[in-house]
Amino acid sequence: MAEKPKSVIRQTDDEARRQARILLRVARFGALAVLDPETGFPSCSRVLLGTDVDGVPVMLGSSLALHVRAILADQRSSLLVGEPGRGDPLAWPRMTVYTRAEQVVRESESWTRIRARFLRRHPKSALYVDFQDFSFFRLVPTSASLNGGFGKAFHLVDEDLVIKSRAVDAISRDEESLIERLNAYSDILSDLRLKGSVTGKSVAWKIVGLDASGIDFAQKEQLSRIELVQPVEDREGAEQLYLNVLKSLARN
Amino acid sequence: MAEKPKSVIRQTDDEARRQARILLRVARFGALAVLDPETGFPSCSRVLLGTDVDGVPVMLGSSLALHVRAILADQRSSLLVGEPGRGDPLAWPRMTVYTRAEQVVRESESWTRIRARFLRRHPKSALYVDFQDFSFFRLVPTSASLNGGFGKAFHLVDEDLVIKSRAVDAISRDEESLIERLNAYSDILSDLRLKGSVTGKSVAWKIVGLDASGIDFAQKEQLSRIELVQPVEDREGAEQLYLNVLKSLARN
Repeated sequence: MAEKPKSVIRQTDDEARRQARILLRVARFGALAVLDPETGFPSCSRVLLGTDVDGVPVMLGSSLALHVRAILADQRSSLLVGEPGRGDPLAWPRMTVYTRAEQVVRESESWTRIRARFLRRHPKSALYVDFQDFSFFRLVPTSASLNGGFGKAFHLVDEDLVIKSRAVDAISRDEESLIERLNAYSDILSDLRLKGSVTGKSVAWKIVGLDASGIDFAQKEQLSRIELVQPVEDREGAEQLYLNVLKSLARN
Repeated sequence: MAEKPKSVIRQTDDEARRQARILLRVARFGALAVLDPETGFPSCSRVLLGTDVDGVPVMLGSSLALHVRAILADQRSSLLVGEPGRGDPLAWPRMTVYTRAEQVVRESESWTRIRARFLRRHPKSALYVDFQDFSFFRLVPTSASLNGGFGKAFHLVDEDLVIKSRAVDAISRDEESLIERLNAYSDILSDLRLKGSVTGKSVAWKIVGLDASGIDFAQKEQLSRIELVQPVEDREGAEQLYLNVLKSLARN
């Protein structure tokens, strides 16, 4: 019998929290586990993902789908995010986020905000987002298990994945116009060094989301995110801060 | 409010069954949903996948991992397979297979067979496959939900995903030597047209699994499969049949 080092959960540090937040917030899609209301089986299916301004992941689903019927019957759910690249799939970081699903009331302020953010990230969902049977759900984290690769397991709590800042609402109210102004810096955006950049090609990134904790970018379907070390606490200085971040990421 | 065509589950036909079998049998990894024995939450995590000779998916896991403790407490589980490529993630086929997890007894005949098949598919798992805390589990399908892309949903039953043939055991007993002899046809294998082939490169495929229903190939970490229209029912003619299939897939 082969020997094996004792497996342990590591002490959660800021680097793990940062990795966890980025994994969750750049996920275009994830695997959602729910409880099948008829059989009690855990059921796993693919969902498109967005985030709300407070960092809470968001999904869009049809009431015809089992996973929506399931979370309407029992909020308990979990989300696997973090897609593997080449090589051993278990060597790539991924995270299970335990969540309670909350349906977003149609036409509410939250719904308008979430819908706009989701559509910027997934423009093609415009084809069905307004169908009568489709709803948004906030998948509110209760805890999470981050696996940053072999032997790199961390436990996270809800607060690690939710953005706490006095500026969350204020930034959210101006998000669209802020994004528009920042996206006008096309010289900077076509020159960004971001994780996920297509090498050898100069395709401009576009900002698709802004929140107190960072900036979400898209380059066609590819998503990337800059996670700030500290959330912005003051709406006043936010625009200049985002712009400075963009400038610091430009190649030239 | 936008209008929407009524969503229906389509009538399951042989093409859907074939797509389902291939999706499941070429999956290198999947998302496994289990019931957390402490919280009752459905928990979703990534697992490496193989298949047994009867087509039943197989996973390898450590008793230190939540998903293994979970299926030891409650067999009910499900597996999401089918990874998206570029473009809309929901446009790519995927399948949820509802399963009952059965632990494979170490050193049993099944264990030896499953271990050999798994190692051919995942050679790097040799690093930990024999650790004391690792076990194989057969994830025996009870039913499945195939989503072949928008509006292409099918319900499948257990029998659609399990290989029924009188030759299952006989082929399994000779699997290793059959593979060795077929892999000796290197001129054919370096010239195969298979789904997943790296275009523009001439990297040889290698056979990593044989069963009564088809042939599993690997090209580095990429997996491909030829699913026979009808399972082989007779061990006698099997080798020639596999060879004929290989020849029919060669470019020249």
